[in-house]
Amino acid sequence: MTQQSKNIAIIGSGLVGSLLAIYLKKLGHAITVFDRRPDIRNITFSGRSINLAMSNRGWNALEEVGIAEEIKKIAIPLDKRAMHVIGKPMYFQKYGKEGEAIWSISRGVLNKRMIDLAEAEGVHFRFDEKVWDVDLPEAKIFTGETEKGEWKEYNYDMIFGCDGAFSRVRHKMQRRSRFDYSQDFIDVGYKELSIPPNADGTHKLDKNSFHIWPRGKFMLIAMPNLDGSFTCTLFLPFEGQVSFDSLTTKEEAKKFFETYFPNVMQVIDDLLVDFFKNPTSALVTMKCYPWTYWDKVALVGDSAHAVVPFYGQGMNAGFEDIFVLHELIQKHGDDWLQIFEQYQKERKPNADAIAELSYRNFVEMSSKTADPKFLLQKKIEKHFASKHPDKWIPIYSRVTFSDRPYSEALAMGDEQESIMKEVMKMPQIEDKWDSTEVENKMLSLLQD
Amino acid sequence: MTQQSKNIAIIGSGLVGSLLAIYLKKLGHAITVFDRRPDIRNITFSGRSINLAMSNRGWNALEEVGIAEEIKKIAIPLDKRAMHVIGKPMYFQKYGKEGEAIWSISRGVLNKRMIDLAEAEGVHFRFDEKVWDVDLPEAKIFTGETEKGEWKEYNYDMIFGCDGAFSRVRHKMQRRSRFDYSQDFIDVGYKELSIPPNADGTHKLDKNSFHIWPRGKFMLIAMPNLDGSFTCTLFLPFEGQVSFDSLTTKEEAKKFFETYFPNVMQVIDDLLVDFFKNPTSALVTMKCYPWTYWDKVALVGDSAHAVVPFYGQGMNAGFEDIFVLHELIQKHGDDWLQIFEQYQKERKPNADAIAELSYRNFVEMSSKTADPKFLLQKKIEKHFASKHPDKWIPIYSRVTFSDRPYSEALAMGDEQESIMKEVMKMPQIEDKWDSTEVENKMLSLLQD
Repeated sequence: MTQQSKNIAIIGSGLVGSLLAIYLKKLGHAITVFDRRPDIRNITFSGRSINLAMSNRGWNALEEVGIAEEIKKIAIPLDKRAMHVIGKPMYFQKYGKEGEAIWSISRGVLNKRMIDLAEAEGVHFRFDEKVWDVDLPEAKIFTGETEKGEWKEYNYDMIFGCDGAFSRVRHKMQRRSRFDYSQDFIDVGYKELSIPPNADGTHKLDKNSFHIWPRGKFMLIAMPNLDGSFTCTLFLPFEGQVSFDSLTTKEEAKKFFETYFPNVMQVIDDLLVDFFKNPTSALVTMKCYPWTYWDKVALVGDSAHAVVPFYGQGMNAGFEDIFVLHELIQKHGDDWLQIFEQYQKERKPNADAIAELSYRNFVEMSSKTADPKFLLQKKIEKHFASKHPDKWIPIYSRVTFSDRPYSEALAMGDEQESIMKEVMKMPQIEDKWDSTEVENKMLSLLQD
Repeated sequence: MTQQSKNIAIIGSGLVGSLLAIYLKKLGHAITVFDRRPDIRNITFSGRSINLAMSNRGWNALEEVGIAEEIKKIAIPLDKRAMHVIGKPMYFQKYGKEGEAIWSISRGVLNKRMIDLAEAEGVHFRFDEKVWDVDLPEAKIFTGETEKGEWKEYNYDMIFGCDGAFSRVRHKMQRRSRFDYSQDFIDVGYKELSIPPNADGTHKLDKNSFHIWPRGKFMLIAMPNLDGSFTCTLFLPFEGQVSFDSLTTKEEAKKFFETYFPNVMQVIDDLLVDFFKNPTSALVTMKCYPWTYWDKVALVGDSAHAVVPFYGQGMNAGFEDIFVLHELIQKHGDDWLQIFEQYQKERKPNADAIAELSYRNFVEMSSKTADPKFLLQKKIEKHFASKHPDKWIPIYSRVTFSDRPYSEALAMGDEQESIMKEVMKMPQIEDKWDSTEVENKMLSLLQD
């Protein structure tokens, strides 16, 4: 279906903003992307920005617009977790079936590439230009040096807010009546650290693994970069006995790494430098509704639904928003009122579902990993899934290696959970967890 | 305990702002109250502002500062509900025990009186002066004609945000990291209507009752004013078959009142005028945390916790905030860091509880009043409570006629609910609801 060409502003040149720009430009619209930050391509890349895990939903969205192969060149496939558990040798956990993997990409590298690709399509970027206000019914934006200074006014047919969790566009929508909104911070913060490459440029740890050091209330993760380094993220409570608050001196931090992460000792000096140089950041779940204003303004990605990063789905969910928006454009042509209405109706329950799943993964990782009952349950599920792969698809696979709705994954996960609740009540379950009796019980519960 | 005199700004001259001003002035502080609106005392009173139901918590707070008797002069006690159910003659439901009542007060009349009382204490009011920005760590406020115009800067020792559900002070706190916030609108809106007095100045309906016309998805309520009129509130869904959206012409509105509220027919012309003259407003539950910033800024009342009005506790909860704050001042003297910390810790769970209770009352009124199971349950509870008044205090009484924490009322209510769930499962409960068997069952469940 062909579309009448519109003059469209996208606020935010991040991953979602630049991908949406490519999609809309290819449909024949005139696109200007505004960003308050300078052009990321002109900034010396620190190599320390958060790494992303691209999975099926993300790839689908890139594929649809013909840039998946291009992006795969800057990504490293990870087909397994590498578990660094204290008192055990490191071991691997396969993510899914043969050939299934998540892909590690540096946010900075990816964002630069996406802006290049958008520019090559003819998208116009205006960097260093901050949007202070939005006139929603008129689709006008106001930019300027300072909030109280002189503003420049722009008129558009439509505005897309791709300006992230602290979106200015949403902020404007939020002041309207009947706009539901929530922001919930968790008590755990994070800090980026880095493991440098070996002298010969190779990786210090297995390159095709997502490395995890689970430690109950806190954890360290590491994802590979193309240059041989690893980007690590330390998730740690802000306050409490072992917390960012309790690690104020170099000695305290050194002791912390030595105690809890002995096998990163060889690079501890690098970690310590990062620890005191890099900021500690907070993690938020942000929900809102509606996501659109008439046929004038729509929120896409984190501006509509920011999630905690424990499922690695933030970017994937944002890219899937665009994929769905594009499907609806194909279906409804120039009827943007309809496109926006269907878009928010279809995506909202899925955004809520991935928010819930991401938060649950945080709870699971921070409080359940030490619970023997929980570990036994996981063992039973895995055992059953290996015997009946068609009957028991792990929720992780439904989220990561599928393009079925997140809300479906959540519902199926809840169903599996209620089955396992019954199974765990069986007497002497510890002794007969891999028995035919347990297997038959699960088969019969699945039929209910 | 005596306090060092502070220079304090209160933002908002509403009920909570003016009561807090009286409390703090009496403690020896210098108080300036800012309000963006003009002095309510100079505005012709329309008689149509929302009526309030003052109950125990509100009276306690007024009593403590010595103004309860003064305010009682402008209040009318309501000791019962007057139920206007279609197909039944009007009947009464006593609220509590003998002497227990809620008190109807016009918001406008009360607010004027409170400002008078505050001024008499020496509180300084600055009306028509809008606060645009707040410097939290420095306790500075910035006021001016327009957001982009010239601003005036004021320095204070402390700032209290009493500026309601859409608080500017909270708005500033919200932009900080790790500030939890939510606003949730319900699908039902409201409109103020008015029933004028009889020609001789008497009330058209029983004066000492809270009048309710429950109609399932919507309802009308009426509360008496001193001048013989009633202030009515129509709660109605925004969208749907019977909704504000569906009542656009005078004929439609007239038919609506004739069909659903036959006994207000005599004043239908007045209602119709109001219906098209008065705005339709939305209802929101607003939660946030923290409520304070160091020892510099604190939110009190609706700015910290706005609730839907279905328990009549919004103002009472705000006044109780002040009562608790005052207790903590007595205890901690000049240690404002401690006062603020204890204040938010003590009040937050109670604010969450009254938000939940108020929302549940909305659900109960809008969807359960037609459910025979629900009505039977209420009948059993009432029967049991009349026989064992010490063992079964209705949750309404715990909220309205007690000063125990809201969170306790919520917990006790949940306990009663779980007992009633068991009771309602008893076979043939419909036939034996007032039997000794049911009574004994409840007594034994209460002992568990």
